[in-house]
Amino acid sequence: MEFLVRIQIALPDGMDDERRAALAAAEVERAAELRAEGTIQRIWRVPGRTANIGVWVAEDASALHAKLTSLPLSRWMDIEVEPLALHPAEGGDA
Amino acid sequence: MEFLVRIQIALPDGMDDERRAALAAAEVERAAELRAEGTIQRIWRVPGRTANIGVWVAEDASALHAKLTSLPLSRWMDIEVEPLALHPAEGGDA
Amino acid sequence: MEFLVRIQIALPDGMDDERRAALAAAEVERAAELRAEGTIQRIWRVPGRTANIGVWVAEDASALHAKLTSLPLSRWMDIEVEPLALHPAEGGDA
Amino acid sequence: MEFLVRIQIALPDGMDDERRAALAAAEVERAAELRAEGTIQRIWRVPGRTANIGVWVAEDASALHAKLTSLPLSRWMDIEVEPLALHPAEGGDA
Amino acid sequence: MEFLVRIQIALPDGMDDERRAALAAAEVERAAELRAEGTIQRIWRVPGRTANIGVWVAEDASALHAKLTSLPLSRWMDIEVEPLALHPAEGGDA
Amino acid sequence: MEFLVRIQIALPDGMDDERRAALAAAEVERAAELRAEGTIQRIWRVPGRTANIGVWVAEDASALHAKLTSLPLSRWMDIEVEPLALHPAEGGDA
Amino acid sequence: MEFLVRIQIALPDGMDDERRAALAAAEVERAAELRAEGTIQRIWRVPGRTANIGVWVAEDASALHAKLTSLPLSRWMDIEVEPLALHPAEGGDA
Amino acid sequence: MEFLVRIQIALPDGMDDERRAALAAAEVERAAELRAEGTIQRIWRVPGRTANIGVWVAEDASALHAKLTSLPLSRWMDIEVEPLALHPAEGGDA
Amino acid sequence: MEFLVRIQIALPDGMDDERRAALAAAEVERAAELRAEGTIQRIWRVPGRTANIGVWVAEDASALHAKLTSLPLSRWMDIEVEPLALHPAEGGDA
Amino acid sequence: MEFLVRIQIALPDGMDDERRAALAAAEVERAAELRAEGTIQRIWRVPGRTANIGVWVAEDASALHAKLTSLPLSRWMDIEVEPLALHPAEGGDA
Repeated sequence: MEFLVRIQIALPDGMDDERRAALAAAEVERAAELRAEGTIQRIWRVPGRTANIGVWVAEDASALHAKLTSLPLSRWMDIEVEPLALHPAEGGDA
Repeated sequence: MEFLVRIQIALPDGMDDERRAALAAAEVERAAELRAEGTIQRIWRVPGRTANIGVWVAEDASALHAKLTSLPLSRWMDIEVEPLALHPAEGGDA
Repeated sequence: MEFLVRIQIALPDGMDDERRAALAAAEVERAAELRAEGTIQRIWRVPGRTANIGVWVAEDASALHAKLTSLPLSRWMDIEVEPLALHPAEGGDA
Repeated sequence: MEFLVRIQIALPDGMDDERRAALAAAEVERAAELRAEGTIQRIWRVPGRTANIGVWVAEDASALHAKLTSLPLSRWMDIEVEPLALHPAEGGDA
Repeated sequence: MEFLVRIQIALPDGMDDERRAALAAAEVERAAELRAEGTIQRIWRVPGRTANIGVWVAEDASALHAKLTSLPLSRWMDIEVEPLALHPAEGGDA
Repeated sequence: MEFLVRIQIALPDGMDDERRAALAAAEVERAAELRAEGTIQRIWRVPGRTANIGVWVAEDASALHAKLTSLPLSRWMDIEVEPLALHPAEGGDA
Repeated sequence: MEFLVRIQIALPDGMDDERRAALAAAEVERAAELRAEGTIQRIWRVPGRTANIGVWVAEDASALHAKLTSLPLSRWMDIEVEPLALHPAEGGDA
Repeated sequence: MEFLVRIQIALPDGMDDERRAALAAAEVERAAELRAEGTIQRIWRVPGRTANIGVWVAEDASALHAKLTSLPLSRWMDIEVEPLALHPAEGGDA
Repeated sequence: MEFLVRIQIALPDGMDDERRAALAAAEVERAAELRAEGTIQRIWRVPGRTANIGVWVAEDASALHAKLTSLPLSRWMDIEVEPLALHPAEGGDA
Repeated sequence: MEFLVRIQIALPDGMDDERRAALAAAEVERAAELRAEGTIQRIWRVPGRTANIGVWVAEDASALHAKLTSLPLSRWMDIEVEPLALHPAEGGDA
């Protein structure tokens, strides 16, 4: 099943640059894994924001939750999930 | 998978009482089928409103869409769906 | 009477990991008691968030308030409560 | 149990004056009954609006729903209900 | 004149328990005075929140402001005030 | 007591021009009376909208309601009222 | 450039079934063309709603506008467009 | 003085095509005049909507109101106006 | 030109009482100057809040900005400005 | 392609004046470059706020993102971007 996932990241202002860099590197690595395994199907940046919009694929909402919380920055993310249904134009029922 | 579904019904003011009654009867019948088959697991009235909140069970969002649009009043419904994940207290991952 | 309760948890960023762990453990324990006694009838995770949605049963809003504030994390919770009425499909008046 | 109930009335523009008057009279009568029996404990007008705010007393949300939908104008009402808990200053738990 | 007053309290996370207790005690005392003198006519807890809803009586908005800011916790309160008009069912003009 | 009153007018599209003109004329006349008697202290147009913002003076919310509903167009108005308190810069308590 | 497009369709209640069917058929046909030419890259149904979410590809917002208004139902659509930027995980700048 | 003006047009569904065309033609003509005289400095379409965003120049809000209501479609427009101040980068005070 | 200005003040919780007092005194003084020169025409307190609503007079939005940012507390203010047009009842065009 | 960009700046209260000044100077310099190269076509201050509204020109949303994040204050900015289409009055398709 596909989900539209909107993620806004807000690191606390007091976090030092070293920790920011380490977390960012870990985040990039984990995101790459999720893309490689097909969980993140597409992902875009929201222009001007530390935010992204993605199409995620997971068995169900529980599996999706496990994937989302595996992101190293998840503690600082505000995440909104919308379930997506198949459209008739892509083979869903009319 | 479970979904929290919020349905607000708004029939047009000009609809005559006979059609209202016929649609309401058809709606009750279809809702009973959906409950009997386990698609509607729980359903509540929102006090004071022609609205309800329900826990629906469906394979995925596409199957849920098919069930929701099988309701005779669906043309006049405003429907909002939230995906629900298993909670650790009910056996989900910690 | 049943209530739909939506809880969003936001621990302050400065809280150390030990206190987080201790509070989380106490929270799990208290939640288990509330489920065992039937106060929390169902509970789900909101995917991607430190949030949950639950169906709570209490004599009235005052009893519900006492139960909610018995949660160890309640000081850091944003809680929204909606009263639920019996639906005709489950035996309520038509 | 007490509930804070906010009611906004919007009659369709095409409704003729006779029907408006008949409905208004029936509404006044039913509201008087609900006040007399103690269901409507207090009620205020929202200045400038065909709206009111009231403190309603009912066994639970199901009983409240039955009372609210007994109002002759309920089909044209937008109703919002908030559950109220006892405050320590009025004898609730501290 | 009557006002519907909605108060949400948010103490800063860093405030120590002693100061919290002292402020809470002072708040209870002042609220009791306001109830005794008839300024706070009714007050309820919003279930699950450090919030309350009250019916306040004051000569006008200026007098109400003075009463509200006499609360020891007022610096940490988010307060919303709605003016209430007499309803015909309670003797207001039809 | 002073109130900030925001009025948005929305006449139904089907209303004929003659009735619009008659209502507008009656509205202008009644508004002039309310200004002359000091009820409407100041009034502005919201640029681009059939809306206005005004400072109204009335004994209390009940008196204000009577004045607002004396406007010939009140049935088609969406009205929002905010109570205003004296500011220290204009002689209110510091 | 890619855009996230959210479309909610609301046909007027008085539209007869024949016109609905004709418009729906024309809509399906035009949408198929837009998919075939690559303008609509992906499209999903929002479960329970006569709404869809799509990823559209167009030279710029002007070209997108022309494509969107080429849909036979566009007069009855409420359309929201968000610009999407390349994400580093898909080759955008870090 | 400059204003950011956001205009959403919503013609009633029952308006016949002839009147739509006549109004649209008159609108185009009046808009061209406003551009020629410098009142409308810039104007853009909001993609997918019968809406536009413009930078308008007028002596003050009263003059702007007169210009906006001179548009033949103004009765069916929802208009929002924001005042704009000179930015230091364009010569405003630092 | 007149503007409706809504100002909400939120001092950081950690600011010490001495600085609060000094800033408040400076604020009162500057506000008095702005009233004396006619920039602040009227000003009211929003009951229960550290907020005010005022009618400000300035040549244009740029001049208004300079006046608003001359307030010693402006760094901690959330300010919303609405442009006001002359109403026909006060001499504006009909 | 043109974009309407709304930027609200919120520096943390604890940032010292020296760093504020240095960042502000760097910001002014970078903004001047973006204006000189034509990326920022127009920019206005929102009166009373540390906010601005601008018309930005960029190849697409990815290029815009790179320009926006090149601003020294971007970490403390809340940025909202709207895509703008050509209007027929400025040469767009009718």
